[in-house]
Amino acid sequence: MPSYRAPVDDTLFLLYDVLGVERRANLPGFSELSRDLVSAVLTEAAKFSETVLQPLNAPGDLQGCTRLANGDVVTPNGFRQAYKALTDAGWGGLSADPQYGGQGLPHVISTAVNEFISSANMAFGMYPGLTQGAIAALTLHGSDEQKRAYLPNLVAGTWTGTMNLTEPHCGTDLGLIRTRAAPQADGSYRIAGTKIFISAGEHDLAENIVHLVLARIEGAPDGTKGISLFVVPKILVNEDGSLGERNAVSCGAIERKMGIHANATCVMNYDGATGWLVGVENRGLPAMFTMMNEARLGVGVQGLSQSEVAYQNAAAYAKERLQGRALSGPKEPSKPADPIIAHADVRRTLLSIKAFNEAARALILWTAIRGDVARVSSDAAEAQAGEDHMGLLTPVIKGVITDVGFDNAVKAQQMFGGHGYVADYGMEQFVRDARIAMIYEGANGVQAMDLVGRKLPRDGGRAIMAFFREVDGFLSENAGEEGLEAFLEPLKRAREDLQKATMWFMANAMAKPDNAGAGATDYMHLFGLVALGYMWALIAKAALTKKAEGADGMDAKLMTGRFFMECCLPETATRLARISAGSETIMALPAEAF
Amino acid sequence: MPSYRAPVDDTLFLLYDVLGVERRANLPGFSELSRDLVSAVLTEAAKFSETVLQPLNAPGDLQGCTRLANGDVVTPNGFRQAYKALTDAGWGGLSADPQYGGQGLPHVISTAVNEFISSANMAFGMYPGLTQGAIAALTLHGSDEQKRAYLPNLVAGTWTGTMNLTEPHCGTDLGLIRTRAAPQADGSYRIAGTKIFISAGEHDLAENIVHLVLARIEGAPDGTKGISLFVVPKILVNEDGSLGERNAVSCGAIERKMGIHANATCVMNYDGATGWLVGVENRGLPAMFTMMNEARLGVGVQGLSQSEVAYQNAAAYAKERLQGRALSGPKEPSKPADPIIAHADVRRTLLSIKAFNEAARALILWTAIRGDVARVSSDAAEAQAGEDHMGLLTPVIKGVITDVGFDNAVKAQQMFGGHGYVADYGMEQFVRDARIAMIYEGANGVQAMDLVGRKLPRDGGRAIMAFFREVDGFLSENAGEEGLEAFLEPLKRAREDLQKATMWFMANAMAKPDNAGAGATDYMHLFGLVALGYMWALIAKAALTKKAEGADGMDAKLMTGRFFMECCLPETATRLARISAGSETIMALPAEAF
Repeated sequence: MPSYRAPVDDTLFLLYDVLGVERRANLPGFSELSRDLVSAVLTEAAKFSETVLQPLNAPGDLQGCTRLANGDVVTPNGFRQAYKALTDAGWGGLSADPQYGGQGLPHVISTAVNEFISSANMAFGMYPGLTQGAIAALTLHGSDEQKRAYLPNLVAGTWTGTMNLTEPHCGTDLGLIRTRAAPQADGSYRIAGTKIFISAGEHDLAENIVHLVLARIEGAPDGTKGISLFVVPKILVNEDGSLGERNAVSCGAIERKMGIHANATCVMNYDGATGWLVGVENRGLPAMFTMMNEARLGVGVQGLSQSEVAYQNAAAYAKERLQGRALSGPKEPSKPADPIIAHADVRRTLLSIKAFNEAARALILWTAIRGDVARVSSDAAEAQAGEDHMGLLTPVIKGVITDVGFDNAVKAQQMFGGHGYVADYGMEQFVRDARIAMIYEGANGVQAMDLVGRKLPRDGGRAIMAFFREVDGFLSENAGEEGLEAFLEPLKRAREDLQKATMWFMANAMAKPDNAGAGATDYMHLFGLVALGYMWALIAKAALTKKAEGADGMDAKLMTGRFFMECCLPETATRLARISAGSETIMALPAEAF
Repeated sequence: MPSYRAPVDDTLFLLYDVLGVERRANLPGFSELSRDLVSAVLTEAAKFSETVLQPLNAPGDLQGCTRLANGDVVTPNGFRQAYKALTDAGWGGLSADPQYGGQGLPHVISTAVNEFISSANMAFGMYPGLTQGAIAALTLHGSDEQKRAYLPNLVAGTWTGTMNLTEPHCGTDLGLIRTRAAPQADGSYRIAGTKIFISAGEHDLAENIVHLVLARIEGAPDGTKGISLFVVPKILVNEDGSLGERNAVSCGAIERKMGIHANATCVMNYDGATGWLVGVENRGLPAMFTMMNEARLGVGVQGLSQSEVAYQNAAAYAKERLQGRALSGPKEPSKPADPIIAHADVRRTLLSIKAFNEAARALILWTAIRGDVARVSSDAAEAQAGEDHMGLLTPVIKGVITDVGFDNAVKAQQMFGGHGYVADYGMEQFVRDARIAMIYEGANGVQAMDLVGRKLPRDGGRAIMAFFREVDGFLSENAGEEGLEAFLEPLKRAREDLQKATMWFMANAMAKPDNAGAGATDYMHLFGLVALGYMWALIAKAALTKKAEGADGMDAKLMTGRFFMECCLPETATRLARISAGSETIMALPAEAF
């Protein structure tokens, strides 16, 4: 059976020693973030994830969700109790507004906690995870009345939330949405249509489910400019806040799918359900997108979470499993064979995962802090810079960390040989679960196009220039720094590849946009490599300082980082070569020749 | 529902126009291989695969195999009829010795047919596939009596075969095997022990199952030098060839696993079963390895097969699915959106799979021909060269084609967005099925070590030097050839990277074997890239000739090949950089820091 130990120490090291979160104490919500407090929060979250959620992960996968004849959905055994424990402890409201019962901690803290929850049980974590998205959307776009009606229960977790975008014929291209909203005399709308792939669309964990639904108001313009956002509760809410009648929304089916079996992926039928407009008519897509940026960062966290838990189990197995002898001579001559961690190929595989995870965690936390700054800083320039950073890095985090996170789960599974392919060790579940993160909340190809087509050129390239400025600042400030040589030179080279790729797009994509499309995915991964390389440089600097102060474990950090710089970062050259090949050959082949 | 169309024309093009199989007409079995005959064989195999096997693939995955209380195993609905159709048509004996009822065609033909069968239904194809391995082992190592007793029924397919190597505590390291063989007065042995992960270990398709089992004869030396090979039929065979009593071997359980659900992966219990020694006492491992080389090439074919069928479905979907508009302006303005094949990122993804598949098929067929030459040529030097080639390329084909084949199935799945994650389109099954090919018959890390540690240095590097000589010969013969420029220069660069990597091992791995271990996987992939690049150069040359003769479809070939040279081959640089980084950092981290 798989196990999981939440990386509390690494998270604290990153937050305090590497990212210097205490320097943000002037910001609302950050002032009380002492290392002791955060340590206590993370330790509790770790315990909850390890002891309550993780044991339900494999059984939940095996049992899955069941739709009853009446449309109700039953979650796997133990999920109800675990969900109650989660709400009792207030984990869902960690970063929510205290006005609605939340604890008001910065989002970077709930982001860290979400990694633990998702490593322990990704399918379970999606129930409160989607609720966080609904809270964000209603907070930003809901009326005061809507906030009062829904937020307290969503924050408490007694109700959960969903996002209803996809229809059978449209996923990425939401302009094609057909679900209709007919205005009623009382100001409500009657919603009719079918939504598919609705995660947590129906279940037995909460008293009510608050669906946020994209639909087209009768007579609205075609395409994306005619889409509005509605809130449609499963059970209608009375004036006094009590639950009233069942609304005309129901789960028509749950999907048979590759993984996340314990989360109900529903076909939702809206049969004239009563809904209310959220925000402005025909401005539903921008409203949904604010929610989706949160969600995309969360999906990046899921990519890391599966990579981390798969790594932990693979590393443990590699230290136990006796098979063959080390090439350099027996390591454990008294045993029938050496543990497979004696083999360089096994170590290389494990190190490539470990080196990715630690930098990915840093990148996520760094970006979450910048997101908090954007949200709460009263310094307009600082807030804007945070916003720019979030916009630029969100597609990178979503696309790269879920792509590589999945690859890492596959690599970790590989360490087990045949034992990784059968269900017993739980490794194949991590692979199946990790796979969805590359797809939902915008498939990774769409993330790459978002990065290259929107985020890069936005405001004259302000965000990417700020990123280069920060990396360059670090490189020049630390030039010649003893112990950092192995980090600065590779970072510089990788950064140059990124600059060349960026310049190549500027020179070649304006006149011929397919050049951007053809290179987008490689650019996203190139960006990710540079961002992760920069994280390793920051980590190495902090580790050198801590080592000088006599801290333990810093040599391992430095060696892991060196491995990243030596063996992972050189991939930027291949990415650049592919981008520079352009789109000519790619576009030349006629469609019928595929 | 997924569909499949066997690539008959591409196979014929590769065999005749690219690889010039008709030039081998002097070899036994090759003289009758007219293009018409092979076309007829492949067309029949295609029809069988497309109409009989493919429709059973998704239902077989859903239903899986069932073990009854008495240990019998029931295969999914329709498998018995399909298996009977396969044996009636004689597909299992295509390349078997006519003396035992086979059709005596070269192995390259059955290899091509196996791709079709495996694309259509990989789990089904394993039943006859493992039988081919058993036939190979008994043909090479069995006594005349054993051949007479088993081969006719195995060739006819009325009996099937299995390979029993793995035990709970040992997979790669077969020296740890504990299954015991006790000699009996009548010359037989009593076999006792437990084997796991036995594909097709028990089922209802055939009248008997012939298990080939590795075990240790009482008193044999420890380790790999004390392992012998035994034949253990499920039902004992009487003197007259009729079936006698049930042997003491049974299926204790079938594994719950990630994919290939329609193939029964069994725990096999040997409770004093009667078996007979195959070949020489304590020489079981080398005997099993002749069988495993066949099997490894077959697993490479499986990697291609899933990549191919996943590609075909993704390409069809990309031409149908309307979503978004092309960056260069609407392609189908009359429709609500463009088909997603208008997007450069989608084309890039599809092309990367297509370009891999066509070269991988060439590499497999080329190697299979060389294997046939090794088997049947009376020219000792030519046979030896074929043997060298097989030895060198088998780990490359097994490791690279299954690694990339799996990645390709994932990429193809990605084209479907959420529809790829749910079961309806069948894409997630291709991913789950493809995954096993990276693991069984020697995990890919083991293939890489076999390549670097054994195949490369063997006979003073004779095989790799012959490979370089062949590539160099092509490069110099075709230097300046019009239309080949886009192929020769990239191939030359990639070949130089391979040479540098090879030299690096020679200089650095002798004194420090971990340098070989650390770089083995990257070397295997670097080798694969160069071999595939060479295939594309051969294909391009043939395509130019055919194009000059007025043949259709050759421009598509050339464009697909150009894409490979421009966008896939540059990866050799990253692989070389990683290899050159050596093992120092990798080995330095203490085990407890993982």
